[in-house]
Amino acid sequence: MKMLKVNMTRDEVIVETFPRDKILGGRALTSYLMTEYGSPTDHALSEKNCFIVAPGLLAGTSAPQSGRISVGVKSPLTGGIKESNAGGTVAHLLGRLGIQGIVVEGKAKEWQVLKITADSAELEPAGDIVGMGNYAACDQLRKRYGEKIGIMVTGRAGEMKMPNSTVAVTDTEGRPSRQCARGGPGAVMGAKGLKAIVVDSKGGSLRKPADDSFKAAIKEATEAIKNGDATEMIHTLGSAAFIQLEHDRGSLPSYNHSQGSFDKVENLTAEKMVKLIEARGGAMGHGCMPGCVVRCSPIYHDADGHFLTAAFEYETLGMLGANLGIDDMDAIARMDRRCDELGFDTIETGSAIGVLHEVGLFEFGDAARAEALIEEMGKGTPLGRILGSGVTGTAKAFGIARVPAVKGQGIPAHSARSSKGWAVTYATTAMGADHTAGIVMDEPLSTEGQVERSEGAQIYSAAQDATGLCLYTFLSPELTVPMINSFYGINWSVEDYLEMGKEILRQERTFNINAGIGKEADRLPDWLTREPLPPTNAVFDVAQKEIDGIFNF
Amino acid sequence: MKMLKVNMTRDEVIVETFPRDKILGGRALTSYLMTEYGSPTDHALSEKNCFIVAPGLLAGTSAPQSGRISVGVKSPLTGGIKESNAGGTVAHLLGRLGIQGIVVEGKAKEWQVLKITADSAELEPAGDIVGMGNYAACDQLRKRYGEKIGIMVTGRAGEMKMPNSTVAVTDTEGRPSRQCARGGPGAVMGAKGLKAIVVDSKGGSLRKPADDSFKAAIKEATEAIKNGDATEMIHTLGSAAFIQLEHDRGSLPSYNHSQGSFDKVENLTAEKMVKLIEARGGAMGHGCMPGCVVRCSPIYHDADGHFLTAAFEYETLGMLGANLGIDDMDAIARMDRRCDELGFDTIETGSAIGVLHEVGLFEFGDAARAEALIEEMGKGTPLGRILGSGVTGTAKAFGIARVPAVKGQGIPAHSARSSKGWAVTYATTAMGADHTAGIVMDEPLSTEGQVERSEGAQIYSAAQDATGLCLYTFLSPELTVPMINSFYGINWSVEDYLEMGKEILRQERTFNINAGIGKEADRLPDWLTREPLPPTNAVFDVAQKEIDGIFNF
Repeated sequence: MKMLKVNMTRDEVIVETFPRDKILGGRALTSYLMTEYGSPTDHALSEKNCFIVAPGLLAGTSAPQSGRISVGVKSPLTGGIKESNAGGTVAHLLGRLGIQGIVVEGKAKEWQVLKITADSAELEPAGDIVGMGNYAACDQLRKRYGEKIGIMVTGRAGEMKMPNSTVAVTDTEGRPSRQCARGGPGAVMGAKGLKAIVVDSKGGSLRKPADDSFKAAIKEATEAIKNGDATEMIHTLGSAAFIQLEHDRGSLPSYNHSQGSFDKVENLTAEKMVKLIEARGGAMGHGCMPGCVVRCSPIYHDADGHFLTAAFEYETLGMLGANLGIDDMDAIARMDRRCDELGFDTIETGSAIGVLHEVGLFEFGDAARAEALIEEMGKGTPLGRILGSGVTGTAKAFGIARVPAVKGQGIPAHSARSSKGWAVTYATTAMGADHTAGIVMDEPLSTEGQVERSEGAQIYSAAQDATGLCLYTFLSPELTVPMINSFYGINWSVEDYLEMGKEILRQERTFNINAGIGKEADRLPDWLTREPLPPTNAVFDVAQKEIDGIFNF
Repeated sequence: MKMLKVNMTRDEVIVETFPRDKILGGRALTSYLMTEYGSPTDHALSEKNCFIVAPGLLAGTSAPQSGRISVGVKSPLTGGIKESNAGGTVAHLLGRLGIQGIVVEGKAKEWQVLKITADSAELEPAGDIVGMGNYAACDQLRKRYGEKIGIMVTGRAGEMKMPNSTVAVTDTEGRPSRQCARGGPGAVMGAKGLKAIVVDSKGGSLRKPADDSFKAAIKEATEAIKNGDATEMIHTLGSAAFIQLEHDRGSLPSYNHSQGSFDKVENLTAEKMVKLIEARGGAMGHGCMPGCVVRCSPIYHDADGHFLTAAFEYETLGMLGANLGIDDMDAIARMDRRCDELGFDTIETGSAIGVLHEVGLFEFGDAARAEALIEEMGKGTPLGRILGSGVTGTAKAFGIARVPAVKGQGIPAHSARSSKGWAVTYATTAMGADHTAGIVMDEPLSTEGQVERSEGAQIYSAAQDATGLCLYTFLSPELTVPMINSFYGINWSVEDYLEMGKEILRQERTFNINAGIGKEADRLPDWLTREPLPPTNAVFDVAQKEIDGIFNF
């Protein structure tokens, strides 16, 4: 395997051999490389910091649903380390070219595109795609570089170096619908002067396993995914299926986190979405990456039957819908599309618009206003800049004390108060409030055992984020490890695999300490411990002392 | 002595006896009360947090120049503890009424004024002063409550709860020219719904010492101040005297901290100011508080001979002048006045406008633009809100990596790179970059011994901030302790006195740790270690490891 070292200042791409003995991919590699090449003490947007891209351990293989791609940065939103991953095709294409990681350093004078083929990797002027929406920019890049390329692109948000900014990744249809969304990686890519990465895998090939037992391992994993408890539901209904579930258990943030259920939920449900899609065209069950088994993504058309958005997900419906009191699914879909076009994280965006309600700048349910605010963000007006600095920056500018965030990052669409284990993850992960960093669904209203559950979930998630496997595989380590072992010709135990997860967490926490963020910052905002969340009227009441004992390894 | 406990939510003022055995005043009392009543884990602007006022240990006595008043808050700018003090008359008046401290809790529904007389302390509706400039508001308050009152008032900035917001204190002429400026205490006062505190000391009297030797002690101290090395210079030239000194040693931040000397310095000097004042009326050598010996403040008139501003100080000339490339003293004076009117810290304001240069929103030397930006801040336009969130918030909104701040607070007008000991104070004080937290002038370009110097200076400053004595007394502990001992009838050694300083620092650091800010945050931004500052071409190069060893007590 190879690693690309890109120096933007010197307009130079060096291809290095990726050390054979390093079984590192995805988040394990981004966090390792951030430790090696990143600077915790420098500003996230300094040219002294770096932008890392890493496909997972199983990228470019025939392992099912293994095409998540990780980006690693120091986050301009939190000031700490960030790994953010997305689906799409790029990880698979990089894997086919034998590229395990990309380290981007320095800063270019003019916007560049990093073009990667089987023979070469070089920087070229980005030209007219700067300032374009992401969909048009990807169309243009395909005209330049061929129809079959995979693309990672930073949008207007990243060009403007906003802390709320994504790196978009093209899906199997070439749409920039998948987002490495959280923590502002788009701004770091933008600060390098790197507008896009295009990958043409022509001449590449599926990676070959070290051991023939790989086939059996992937077969077993594939069967397990197919037969997974949630697979059929997620395939049929998309992640929107969670709307009703979260509403029912009082954990769907509504009206700026003041309700845990949404009175107009019937207009946001997956069933509603399916009906609209059936009537208008579009499709449920789209797979964003090669080898996808679950195929969860909706393709959503507008009332006239024209394509509107892809990857129209639960978090978007929750944060741009319920959290803003908006039940107009078309309006939310338009906002999703605009966020994809401009490169905004829908979670952070919904969170930031939500707090504007406190200062009279946003009325719940006013979809037109929410859409207009996203346009302001895209234009970089002063108000757009405020919102683009995330919910914490917005609260700071407007003197708002009730901030739904941890370590500067907005709380996602699973209410902390009525999902106490998940909330422990929000409090303690190095990433800021992040729902994928460690999912805890069990006994959500209990205070007991949540720290242990969260720690276990965080170790599991960190390890899985290294493999490139999608969250929705819900694959157990017992089925994951045989794929890794047979592919790499090693002999990891499940414990070895989870030790990789622990090592990732240790590296990330060390980075944060060096960045000035110690364990003292591992806490939820106090108002969550006092303000009951209807309808459960839960408050967050896991003892801080117990929380402080997490990660004792 | 008494302590007022004001509950804004309940519209209630309780008068408590201040414990006789507690020798606590000024910063010693604010930091103690923040530890007792404040909540490090709650948001600075939460109604769970409190706003503290404390005159110094010698307030209301005949000790010379002992009328500094401290406010204590959790800072909305830094997220940590903040003590900010100013001169003016209020401390003296509170002392005469036997009031040692005020704790303000909760949050009023409508804006209130806390009216304190010899007989009573009560909340009254603020009425029409809300929204007024501070000068007009103080005029109006005097109409209501009498000519001889002292006033603390939060301006438009504090009403809007901006992180850059001061608490203004009236001087001996009744002008709100003295500012508890740094760290945003005005926003915390505003978040309580407390618009102003008015103090009428009629019926009060000078506090009586426990021991007659107090007279001799204050006589000795007064003589020492009169004969101090810098007294004549500061009296004659004001703090503007430091313009030439800092320019000469390359430590006057100019052009957004890119130069340490200012090419147009001749237009900012004290000599220039004195000439203008002599020609136009106004005065040098004004004393802001009763019993002032040094009398350092200029009263500055405009070209037509009309009063423009009082307390026109070095930091303002540095940060709104040199740091913005502006050499028009009248324009800087107008900005000083507008900052006093609206309740903005001139340091944070100059720092925030300075970084706008990086994104093309401010051209160095454009005084009209700088004045217009301050008006935007006062109106709370979105751009004004960005600037009002301080230099760190401004940089975050605009994607600026080169941030001249520590712990979220802008670096003042003594360059960190060419004042290495002072810079250690910036890095390590719990307050964020603060010049009064520990002044170190010796061997500014040396890396040796700066941690020790800064630690000593911080202990000295903390103790002095407890006494209410003005910085410009430059009084040694040896002359301060006899005043405290004879006044309180105690027998402190100099070590006991400095132990008070240490205890303040310990409390403040503990508060910050509980607020999520550990010692990992004790560092200057990395670019100061790399970018040489002309003309000395110094970089900050005191070893971080050495810095981390500070406060080992």
